[in-house]
Amino acid sequence: MSTPGERAALSDLPLRDDLRGRSPYGAPQLDVPYQLNTNENPYPPPPALVADITAAVGEIAATLHRYPDRDATGLRTDLASYLTAATGVGLSTANLWAANGSNEVLQQILQAFGGPGRTALGFEPSYSMHPIIAAGTRTEWAPTPRRADFSLDVAAAVAVLAERAPDIVFVTSPNNPTGQSIPLADLRALIAAAPAIVVVDEAYAEFSPQESAVALIDEFPTKVIVSRTMSKAFAFAGGRLGYLAAAPAMVDALLLVRLPYHLSSLTQAAARAALRHADETLASVHALAAERDRVALALAGLGAAVVPSDANFILFGHFADPHATWQSYLDRGVLIRDVGIPGHLRVTVGTPAENDAFLAASKEIVQ
Amino acid sequence: MSTPGERAALSDLPLRDDLRGRSPYGAPQLDVPYQLNTNENPYPPPPALVADITAAVGEIAATLHRYPDRDATGLRTDLASYLTAATGVGLSTANLWAANGSNEVLQQILQAFGGPGRTALGFEPSYSMHPIIAAGTRTEWAPTPRRADFSLDVAAAVAVLAERAPDIVFVTSPNNPTGQSIPLADLRALIAAAPAIVVVDEAYAEFSPQESAVALIDEFPTKVIVSRTMSKAFAFAGGRLGYLAAAPAMVDALLLVRLPYHLSSLTQAAARAALRHADETLASVHALAAERDRVALALAGLGAAVVPSDANFILFGHFADPHATWQSYLDRGVLIRDVGIPGHLRVTVGTPAENDAFLAASKEIVQ
Repeated sequence: MSTPGERAALSDLPLRDDLRGRSPYGAPQLDVPYQLNTNENPYPPPPALVADITAAVGEIAATLHRYPDRDATGLRTDLASYLTAATGVGLSTANLWAANGSNEVLQQILQAFGGPGRTALGFEPSYSMHPIIAAGTRTEWAPTPRRADFSLDVAAAVAVLAERAPDIVFVTSPNNPTGQSIPLADLRALIAAAPAIVVVDEAYAEFSPQESAVALIDEFPTKVIVSRTMSKAFAFAGGRLGYLAAAPAMVDALLLVRLPYHLSSLTQAAARAALRHADETLASVHALAAERDRVALALAGLGAAVVPSDANFILFGHFADPHATWQSYLDRGVLIRDVGIPGHLRVTVGTPAENDAFLAASKEIVQ
Repeated sequence: MSTPGERAALSDLPLRDDLRGRSPYGAPQLDVPYQLNTNENPYPPPPALVADITAAVGEIAATLHRYPDRDATGLRTDLASYLTAATGVGLSTANLWAANGSNEVLQQILQAFGGPGRTALGFEPSYSMHPIIAAGTRTEWAPTPRRADFSLDVAAAVAVLAERAPDIVFVTSPNNPTGQSIPLADLRALIAAAPAIVVVDEAYAEFSPQESAVALIDEFPTKVIVSRTMSKAFAFAGGRLGYLAAAPAMVDALLLVRLPYHLSSLTQAAARAALRHADETLASVHALAAERDRVALALAGLGAAVVPSDANFILFGHFADPHATWQSYLDRGVLIRDVGIPGHLRVTVGTPAENDAFLAASKEIVQ
């Protein structure tokens, strides 16, 4: 049996020129004993949360013939409550927006404020989806290097913003895949220097002691957007819920580009259930931060160069051939991430047992 | 208590110029007795399906700390089975792709094959999201008129395709909001004349007796994409599952632009449950088609001009002031749709009781 159309190859299609020769984004999804490659939270949702999600979805399932609430008002209200409690900044529903993962949030921001003829700037290495989503919206990408130790030189960054005048600036704090946070005073200096939108990507904020950039929304309402996710601290990667906080007018702007009914009734119901159990879920954050510090210390003890991290992962080196080293870990059942930074690899902080397995492998590999 | 950033107005933001002055897309979401405005299936999911969705989500909820299957392989396999059974064309997993609603499917197609410097052409009036999604991807939109009776003049269309040479052609069959299907022979002529991609939007195909364009994939593998949705016939609007069938290379092309992990574990599990109950759910299709024909006949009997429909809605007129007529229905608790076509309104086919309420209102309004 042949498959319809299988004789056509990708190169036969009228693809956009900039996509030719590209490969799809994505870490390998392999079935191995220790999955420490995508910064997931290793703790499954607690049974009470599973029961609550199941009940909430069971209720909404009876009305799935109807479209969802297009503006996800209930969910945004709950996100506002959570973020108010987490940051001490009094946010309301009008400050919040949500989509299918922070990737979709970022894509909507680029559709509204980027696009052809506009430029987005990021401090690299950083989250590799930023330039990919920029390219997907045909926004020019202006990569700007960090220091050799991956920290951000704020004075140099301010100068670059003045010179390049980008339409959108991405600042990731804690930075992925390097781990450092940016102090609020430094962020304020960056935002003051930026001519337009600054997206502070706080996907890993719950793991960091630094104050959130939501504190700067009222000071810079036409500039600041803080993006967040429930994938990491909330252990909700499979639920796909990204969100942002910004001035209400920013949310109004995103309504102009969002696909109508982008967020399913199931997603809205399940995410609201997850937010009701935030205290339980976020208890894992402290345990993971403690494990991160333990793993970092042990790695350093083995002679590895460890980049300081405020997140749930650690970048470490130096390796002459990171890909070969990555394979050595995989051969021992430990899947970590080759993020393409010369000499380095990234490991996600897992459960104590997973971290012990990683450290046991490291003892053989790093030393 | 003030809301952070509320002093900023939309006009203060560095929005893209083409978005200035625009309003968000979307029909009013009003709480009225008879909701006949968004072409939803009026029949809720049967209890066995609700139970199956609940069980499937309950199972997957325990693993929500992990990212979903990025390529949704199981779901695509199930969609291939359904579409093979529905159309008689033997499709495999590699022919199928899925996203959060057909809007996201269409956006991905435009990101891969459209964009700046490229043109998409549609035969209007048709689905109003086509030009909106084209604009969102900065693809030039080339509207081409249908005949005055809303049918497609295939010979004229072939001439237009030769002249304009659009990169993407949208053909909606049955057409929304007018209702007519396009025979396969006419589709073949259009596709043969098109220089590149032809998206056949079959959102309402289950309601139509016409053969599906999936029969043309093997003949035109570098051109044909058939987009579908579970929102209508499957009564799954709240679940947000759009999909497409095309040559495997077309799916490979979309992998280059899709946001990674775009489809949540919840969506994949719930949609697979819905596909397991296809026979039960799709039983409503026959009932709705019969009701459609009853309502059309009754409307015509009241003196309305009724456009022939193969879908689950009816376009009818003529009204001197469609918006005032729309309001007259709403005043009677019947929410229908003013789709912006001079002299016309669109009504979704509902349950017999809902249709009776619509016809009772029509008796007062149309005559």
